[in-house]
Amino acid sequence: MFLDKDFLLNTETARILYHEAAEDCPIIDYHCHINPREIWEDRRYDNITQVWLGGDHYKWRLMRSAGVPEAYITGSQTSDHDKFIKWAEVLGKAIGNPLYHWSHLELRRFFGFEGILNKENAEAVWLVANAKLKSEGYSVRGLINMSNVETICTTDDPVDSLEWHEKLAADPTFKTAVLPAWRPDKAMNIEKPTWTDYLAQLEAVSGVKIDSFAALKQALAVRMAFFHNHNCRLSDHALNYVMYAPAEEAEVEAIFKARLAGTLPTPEQENIFKFAFMTFVAGEYKRLGWVMQLHYGCRRDNNGPMFRKMGPDTGFDCVDNFAPSAQTAAFLGHLEDRGILPKTILYSLNTNDNAAIDTILGCFQKSEAVGYIQHGSAWWFNDHFDGMTEQIKSLGALGYLAGFVGMLTDSRSFLSYPRHEYFRRILCRVFGEWVEEGMYPADMDTLKEIVRAIQGAKFYIVLQRRRRCRRHFPLSRLSTILP
Amino acid sequence: MFLDKDFLLNTETARILYHEAAEDCPIIDYHCHINPREIWEDRRYDNITQVWLGGDHYKWRLMRSAGVPEAYITGSQTSDHDKFIKWAEVLGKAIGNPLYHWSHLELRRFFGFEGILNKENAEAVWLVANAKLKSEGYSVRGLINMSNVETICTTDDPVDSLEWHEKLAADPTFKTAVLPAWRPDKAMNIEKPTWTDYLAQLEAVSGVKIDSFAALKQALAVRMAFFHNHNCRLSDHALNYVMYAPAEEAEVEAIFKARLAGTLPTPEQENIFKFAFMTFVAGEYKRLGWVMQLHYGCRRDNNGPMFRKMGPDTGFDCVDNFAPSAQTAAFLGHLEDRGILPKTILYSLNTNDNAAIDTILGCFQKSEAVGYIQHGSAWWFNDHFDGMTEQIKSLGALGYLAGFVGMLTDSRSFLSYPRHEYFRRILCRVFGEWVEEGMYPADMDTLKEIVRAIQGAKFYIVLQRRRRCRRHFPLSRLSTILP
Amino acid sequence: MFLDKDFLLNTETARILYHEAAEDCPIIDYHCHINPREIWEDRRYDNITQVWLGGDHYKWRLMRSAGVPEAYITGSQTSDHDKFIKWAEVLGKAIGNPLYHWSHLELRRFFGFEGILNKENAEAVWLVANAKLKSEGYSVRGLINMSNVETICTTDDPVDSLEWHEKLAADPTFKTAVLPAWRPDKAMNIEKPTWTDYLAQLEAVSGVKIDSFAALKQALAVRMAFFHNHNCRLSDHALNYVMYAPAEEAEVEAIFKARLAGTLPTPEQENIFKFAFMTFVAGEYKRLGWVMQLHYGCRRDNNGPMFRKMGPDTGFDCVDNFAPSAQTAAFLGHLEDRGILPKTILYSLNTNDNAAIDTILGCFQKSEAVGYIQHGSAWWFNDHFDGMTEQIKSLGALGYLAGFVGMLTDSRSFLSYPRHEYFRRILCRVFGEWVEEGMYPADMDTLKEIVRAIQGAKFYIVLQRRRRCRRHFPLSRLSTILP
Repeated sequence: MFLDKDFLLNTETARILYHEAAEDCPIIDYHCHINPREIWEDRRYDNITQVWLGGDHYKWRLMRSAGVPEAYITGSQTSDHDKFIKWAEVLGKAIGNPLYHWSHLELRRFFGFEGILNKENAEAVWLVANAKLKSEGYSVRGLINMSNVETICTTDDPVDSLEWHEKLAADPTFKTAVLPAWRPDKAMNIEKPTWTDYLAQLEAVSGVKIDSFAALKQALAVRMAFFHNHNCRLSDHALNYVMYAPAEEAEVEAIFKARLAGTLPTPEQENIFKFAFMTFVAGEYKRLGWVMQLHYGCRRDNNGPMFRKMGPDTGFDCVDNFAPSAQTAAFLGHLEDRGILPKTILYSLNTNDNAAIDTILGCFQKSEAVGYIQHGSAWWFNDHFDGMTEQIKSLGALGYLAGFVGMLTDSRSFLSYPRHEYFRRILCRVFGEWVEEGMYPADMDTLKEIVRAIQGAKFYIVLQRRRRCRRHFPLSRLSTILP
Repeated sequence: MFLDKDFLLNTETARILYHEAAEDCPIIDYHCHINPREIWEDRRYDNITQVWLGGDHYKWRLMRSAGVPEAYITGSQTSDHDKFIKWAEVLGKAIGNPLYHWSHLELRRFFGFEGILNKENAEAVWLVANAKLKSEGYSVRGLINMSNVETICTTDDPVDSLEWHEKLAADPTFKTAVLPAWRPDKAMNIEKPTWTDYLAQLEAVSGVKIDSFAALKQALAVRMAFFHNHNCRLSDHALNYVMYAPAEEAEVEAIFKARLAGTLPTPEQENIFKFAFMTFVAGEYKRLGWVMQLHYGCRRDNNGPMFRKMGPDTGFDCVDNFAPSAQTAAFLGHLEDRGILPKTILYSLNTNDNAAIDTILGCFQKSEAVGYIQHGSAWWFNDHFDGMTEQIKSLGALGYLAGFVGMLTDSRSFLSYPRHEYFRRILCRVFGEWVEEGMYPADMDTLKEIVRAIQGAKFYIVLQRRRRCRRHFPLSRLSTILP
Repeated sequence: MFLDKDFLLNTETARILYHEAAEDCPIIDYHCHINPREIWEDRRYDNITQVWLGGDHYKWRLMRSAGVPEAYITGSQTSDHDKFIKWAEVLGKAIGNPLYHWSHLELRRFFGFEGILNKENAEAVWLVANAKLKSEGYSVRGLINMSNVETICTTDDPVDSLEWHEKLAADPTFKTAVLPAWRPDKAMNIEKPTWTDYLAQLEAVSGVKIDSFAALKQALAVRMAFFHNHNCRLSDHALNYVMYAPAEEAEVEAIFKARLAGTLPTPEQENIFKFAFMTFVAGEYKRLGWVMQLHYGCRRDNNGPMFRKMGPDTGFDCVDNFAPSAQTAAFLGHLEDRGILPKTILYSLNTNDNAAIDTILGCFQKSEAVGYIQHGSAWWFNDHFDGMTEQIKSLGALGYLAGFVGMLTDSRSFLSYPRHEYFRRILCRVFGEWVEEGMYPADMDTLKEIVRAIQGAKFYIVLQRRRRCRRHFPLSRLSTILP
């Protein structure tokens, strides 16, 4: 039956694994885009449109695809109520879309609404959800607590003050660890018109005058130390593709200086600069024990008029199918040759890259960690039933699935934690099918151990001491564990 | 049981949806390659080889793959009878091939033959089918009537007189609308040796002297008006890939003039010319309210000796896996920037492009239509059980499946209409599996509404007023509905 | 139940097909990397690590992925016993990996061990397996006999003396045919530093002074005649991708001479040379009636430090996703234009190439053989449950599956023959699902005929007379059948 307690759990093995091993594991959401300030301030919401539709470009895309006028999606003249009604109407027919599952899971887990959201009952759900939002515990922190979230890693710019992370770390009343993650895209994107302005900001916070590539590296090192002191152990990069473009340092400096003098790089020069940049930061990550996350295969901001009106991350991105695996492998090989390959998680937006990634992993594993190089969970557009299933099966066939770092939300919303539930159900379903097909023995202890290990991302990312997810991990010990 | 009434309908939900919602929907075959003259003349066939094997390069390929000598496939010295026997022998072992399903569906639906076609009973089927072909109603129009076809859109060259469409439109005795569709490949393919000869034909029918790119555009506009007056609302293009190669108008004119003077364009110039061509026609489509169909990802005529002997479309084409999604997105973005993006249907012959296409759609949707930008149904080589299933699931996961424009035959044969049945069964099967897995509620009214909407392509293409498929749509009203 | 007699056979049809048609077919392992000397010398093993883990880079990769230190994988200081224990520990949790199935099938078929190998019982398995290895029949020839192997085609360099093949051919006591296969990669790889040294070896064995491309071709022809006389009927090539780079003979000679003089070719020149090389050898294959195997889509030796320590084929390769299907088609078209296209088997390491390959096949089939151009079984990293299933279904949908040349081990181990069993089970499973879904009639005779035909690779490769696998093929007649 639709979305019942055994949703997606089509075998007895899957049901046992999910309910006895996966369900109660705390969430380690090691990559997301939520705003730490809203956690600190414990923001509250006037209505469900604010918390659910505001900023959620997944939903916006679906509404546009169904022919809904933009006024009902992002228009400032349209009421939150009317936007919600339109959304409900579209969602009601969104068969086959992960938003159908995510949204209904969210309505169940946070609002206790067990029905179907569609045109007919939109008004009723609007009232029920808004009433809930006014009640005790429906602040940002309340939503996080409800979701059993042990650790959150946000996504932060090198110039960020990390003041909200600092305040949260000092607050003993909030048990969830909220850690920063380092995302230096703006420092790398030399081709962007705003790059020099950004360097000025970086100069200001680092105290380093950035008049050379060497100086840029120094400024970044200053900020990495700052981030490390704020318990950052994770970086993240958005790349068109993982490029391999080695050059002499002098050439990189020449590109840098020409850019400062106003000459934009050619595409080849852009790659040379970015490759040098990535090589530098990778070395620092290795030194600091950080994880390097590489997200690629995305072409962003494809709709010019909408981009000019609304800016980035508003639902106008698509898969870029140019990502030569030879260059990805050569980049990692370049780092390995120099002994500076950090723990790495690869994510491509193009599902066709699954096998390439899963075979690249195996070329660079080492005994410093189980799964030193990882294939991240199905990302963004692929974060649906088939996409996640395929990522799990491909990793299983080509790598060591039991060492998988597992799920993350990658979300901008505080209502997205059920995506972990969705992933866990799918994982247990795949395991259950394998067992009931006779493809793996019905050894429930080992199966549960593997399922729990896959929820234990923190141990891969922060500590590499223990990987098993435990139900009653003493959160208070987190600060003492961090190095 | 093989091909029984519940063929492919593996759940109760699927059976209900197919038999109660999909089965009786009239067919809107909005893209095919049948010859309108044969409809007008109401051609009859001497035997099943003529109607079934003549011109069907799908079947020819399969026979060649099974080692059948060419004499039995296209040879002029071999009898129709012997060709049929060879075909039956090959088909009998063609496990896993869509031709196995299509062919048996066709034998059932048109000839009432419910057995299996193979070597053993080939002679019997030959007699049965040929007897049927001699009986009442087995002319071209009869076959179309039997198939409940409401609308056919053919594929026509800009120089075509459309005389057969005109005659058919004027004939009140034939209820199926036979509309032209505009396919100006020959005008675009500047690199072809026959291009200048083609321009001469276009000059003759348009009355425009084509001595510049500007003049070519004028000539095309004249012909588009002519097509529009003959109820054309649809264009179609065969591209290697959707290219993005902007240049100044002067450069395009220079390429054009050099070509007229005998200098073939470089590959870069070819792309520049074609991009300018596509930008122009897209603008016209937008202005006229036409749909733009882009078919790409195919490498044609790979076998030189056979091409020289038999010409194009004889079974020697393959998937071309070069189709950069960045350029596809950039082309649509280019049109959007200029406000000239028409309704568009993208088809790639490479199934690996599914996700790229389905994410490109979402970047350009608008409220002028549900599914303004569409991902066409699995095309040509992909038009099989797994290919169609994957296209449906990918579109569901990444787009708004309920707004899908649905199936077309793309066929050269009057016996291909059961491909719609095949598609409908697969669509209902996917829906049924989702429902019985608890992934969508068992809300049969909404499910039926979605299933019917997906058969309602005409309303997307011609009218955008109503999308629901109706059993008894008054065909006589069609001319009054067309703008 | 895990790995029982009906492992993977989830329908009654599948069970009948496997047990009554597939199971007893002799194995024709037409492509592998085993050492013929070890067959001649009838090597024995001291323990299971030697025969099972030594040289098996599939297993090494998995151990590295699980964080096992290299000492336990390839270290010379670690005992065979300790390596086995570590392997058992890793394997125990390798859910979803084909090694889990292969390894357990091997333990069952060769060692009679029907349990699960994991950390807990590793010691017991170590003892059982080693005891078996000391008993009668556990030599290399014994393992081959146990596996019902009718024909083995090894992989041999043009300079190889083929002395072990000769001795084996002259030995009437060993019934399995051990035939050489021609792999001239070293002669083609003009960009490698070792190329000139290799030419010196080729000069020595051919008696041809190689001072031009023409002379190289002559030397190769000499060696091909030698191989042909030793019953070689099969070639094999490892290519980055199948390239199309035609040039005048003079240009090829210039590249050749420059290289002899010490100037390495540019990437373009490398392609020109390799294309000319491939065109030449293809013509010879056609003349001699050999099969051309093309393996591509692999990037090798990605980990520099490990390559320098351990050399090639040690577990550091990955999928290369650059393989333009347009060039593959153009290369085959180039051969076809010249009437020199031999029987060909295409293998890509990139599963995304399935559809491109399966549509290329159809462009070049001819009546000289059923399936003149073939898509090889899922190769290397893809040789798992999903990879094989997809290859079978794609070939079925786009080609003539009943003419498929079938399975090979591609292995370096004498314990890998159960990979044929794995393939056969998957093939029967796919057929069974099609039948029970009503997608193919339950015509068991035809189904069995097709299943057996797919095991009959030898007849495609060597004879093209009969394709059906027969249980009691008189092996003694093999030499008289060879032309």
